[in-house]
Amino acid sequence: MPMTMTQKILAAHAGQDEVRPGQLIMAELDGVLGNDITTPVAIREFEKAGFDNVADADRINIVLDHFVPNKDIKAAQQSAACRKFAKTHDIPNFFDVGKMGIEHALLPEQGIVTAGDCIIGADSHTCTYGALGAFSTGVGSTDMAAGMATGKAWFKVPEAIKVELVGELPPYVTGKDVILTLIGQIGVDGALYRSLEFTGPGVKSLSMDDRLCICNMAIEAGAKNGIFPVDEVTEAYLEGRSRRPWTKYKADPDAEYIQSITMDLSQLEPVTAWPHLPENVHPAAEAPIEVDQVVIGSCTNGRMEDMEAAWEILKGRQVKDGVRAIVIPATMQIYKECLKKGIIEDLIDAGCVVSTPTCGPCLGGYMGILAEEERCISTTNRNFVGRMGHVTSEVYLASPYTAAASAIIGVITDPRTLMQTETPVETEKEAAA
Amino acid sequence: MPMTMTQKILAAHAGQDEVRPGQLIMAELDGVLGNDITTPVAIREFEKAGFDNVADADRINIVLDHFVPNKDIKAAQQSAACRKFAKTHDIPNFFDVGKMGIEHALLPEQGIVTAGDCIIGADSHTCTYGALGAFSTGVGSTDMAAGMATGKAWFKVPEAIKVELVGELPPYVTGKDVILTLIGQIGVDGALYRSLEFTGPGVKSLSMDDRLCICNMAIEAGAKNGIFPVDEVTEAYLEGRSRRPWTKYKADPDAEYIQSITMDLSQLEPVTAWPHLPENVHPAAEAPIEVDQVVIGSCTNGRMEDMEAAWEILKGRQVKDGVRAIVIPATMQIYKECLKKGIIEDLIDAGCVVSTPTCGPCLGGYMGILAEEERCISTTNRNFVGRMGHVTSEVYLASPYTAAASAIIGVITDPRTLMQTETPVETEKEAAA
Repeated sequence: MPMTMTQKILAAHAGQDEVRPGQLIMAELDGVLGNDITTPVAIREFEKAGFDNVADADRINIVLDHFVPNKDIKAAQQSAACRKFAKTHDIPNFFDVGKMGIEHALLPEQGIVTAGDCIIGADSHTCTYGALGAFSTGVGSTDMAAGMATGKAWFKVPEAIKVELVGELPPYVTGKDVILTLIGQIGVDGALYRSLEFTGPGVKSLSMDDRLCICNMAIEAGAKNGIFPVDEVTEAYLEGRSRRPWTKYKADPDAEYIQSITMDLSQLEPVTAWPHLPENVHPAAEAPIEVDQVVIGSCTNGRMEDMEAAWEILKGRQVKDGVRAIVIPATMQIYKECLKKGIIEDLIDAGCVVSTPTCGPCLGGYMGILAEEERCISTTNRNFVGRMGHVTSEVYLASPYTAAASAIIGVITDPRTLMQTETPVETEKEAAA
Repeated sequence: MPMTMTQKILAAHAGQDEVRPGQLIMAELDGVLGNDITTPVAIREFEKAGFDNVADADRINIVLDHFVPNKDIKAAQQSAACRKFAKTHDIPNFFDVGKMGIEHALLPEQGIVTAGDCIIGADSHTCTYGALGAFSTGVGSTDMAAGMATGKAWFKVPEAIKVELVGELPPYVTGKDVILTLIGQIGVDGALYRSLEFTGPGVKSLSMDDRLCICNMAIEAGAKNGIFPVDEVTEAYLEGRSRRPWTKYKADPDAEYIQSITMDLSQLEPVTAWPHLPENVHPAAEAPIEVDQVVIGSCTNGRMEDMEAAWEILKGRQVKDGVRAIVIPATMQIYKECLKKGIIEDLIDAGCVVSTPTCGPCLGGYMGILAEEERCISTTNRNFVGRMGHVTSEVYLASPYTAAASAIIGVITDPRTLMQTETPVETEKEAAA
């Protein structure tokens, strides 16, 4: 029978010619991922189940990114447990302080995940790697334990929704606006246990960072995974980076989709998701809501293009007095590239602080937690009640352009309005030159 | 009667011609300081006492430095309370995210404290400003509240210990080694409620950053304050920085000291204070104790010279695998200077992470908390049981040179040994040039 891209990857990893939606399969895994919060739980399950050895140490990835450098004793104990396990089982892809980065930015960047892969991760945003043409999905820590021990995982083959992209994004509109707009249309359960398969002539205009952002938030529509076809953009990204040869899967032309959605990228505008669900999407221009804090970073929007977007807006301007602007490059490599380009200096001159790579504020971890009734515009992925701090605090989700523009005005702002009306001042560096 | 330098400052601020040790006086304050932990307590006391107004908003300094960007909801609520108070009372010297820095590095840097001042701060390391020839001391939050409301504080005039410095420090021996060696000699209660008055021909060879470090740790010998004479080094530091004219107080030649200590700086060596007291001082070369973490920063050693010392050691070398090296420039200004000089890039290349300015790890706050039985060499000021995390963890205090050398070798190392035996490799940047 004809299959979608996701179904083809699952069939190949199950050693079968075909799979059909709803079928339970056991698939070989190219990678198993855990972070400093979920890995210790998986280790306990691994030990409780009596496993002594991992199936393949090279396919296990443990990334300390949520609470490192450790924020408290509990976090320190969790990191220590990960360290011990990584050492005991000789796990080469163990990322500690100094080599750290946010897992879903780090694994693609380091070429650890690649096109055609089948990957599970004990973190809901593991679906990010669909941007590379991989099947990847979030699982619980018990599945992570089983995955480490056996190298396999069971899946129910998902039905698919086809998202046909046409046109090209206008300036200051990004992948984040694409996925927020889509979630606004179909709702947070609009793709429940389905794969979101992006396709169409609009794909080629989307950068890899846009695609990573879009697939990252597939889970926010309830999707099992999000996936993009492998094209020139993908291959350019993987070339010289992927540690393994990759496989290019392609949906059959007559594959079955339970739903088809067409999005004209050229018609999109900067949007924000208001509290307390990612589906509560409004144009950024709709209401000038005051903010206390701005966060630019996370596994959703902490990549190089995101840093450059923030830079374009903030360079030579000033964060509004009374607003805290926290920028978090997602990996040490991105951080270093920001250093080299002078981005960090300009952001600091604008009044931002630039943090070490961490998931911190996104999940109410650390590095920017909100007090009672405080409001934050954030490039992260979830705006649930109390997600970033106090139960009465509010999170508005947006792109780095929109978040940065809002930092300057102090209210939620369409970046296009700011860029049309305000001229940046000469930076200290430029004045010196 | 003849007076010490401290006694002269107190007499002047009490509006008296003279004071004598043991006397209780009420002194006018040039500055009152609080941080994000102590200020909320002071605000509650201020309100409980029924005060409506502050005596002089310009003399109040509130610095958010312990847990910002906020590490949890409690910290966020504390910061919010500080913000509200600063706004209500129009306090100009309120330092929030974006303008932040560690209080005892920030106030001298910003010219807010100056020679001849009388300053209290609700933080034990307020004694730092003695380096500028000021009287400054740590108080409780209730005294901070009273100081904000009345502009005054009561003091018992301290007796003094004279520390006569002769000679000059050898290479790789710093102010940190001076104060640790002194505390090792006199003990953690060796200067209880006394002022430590540094004097002698050795003073002029000490940089302002050395002096700030030395006075910062006066409290670790139990001293009420530490103080240096105002000389060319002081005036060069204050020139163009101090926001107010300053007064140069000088001890009378026949001032009485309860004890005199002579230190020959040329005879000092790099030392470390072993757990669990700052008086437990040993030569850095004494034992190659393995470390899990290295922290370079804090109000004691997060200044520019400290960053440069770490840089000199770490540039072109690699942090030992398995060691977490956390570098924390004490203020945004220092952070920016590190950026401009390429220090941050070289530290990251060496395998460090560079944090936003914070007190974090020093007091077990965040940004590098220790797990069970982990060991850290740190440029901070206290190595009490559980200070940096788990009750079984250990902190070894040292200078930035010693801490950086230990990061590379993975065991506590005399920086002179490293620099004599190891050649750094060419950095990426140099190779490209």
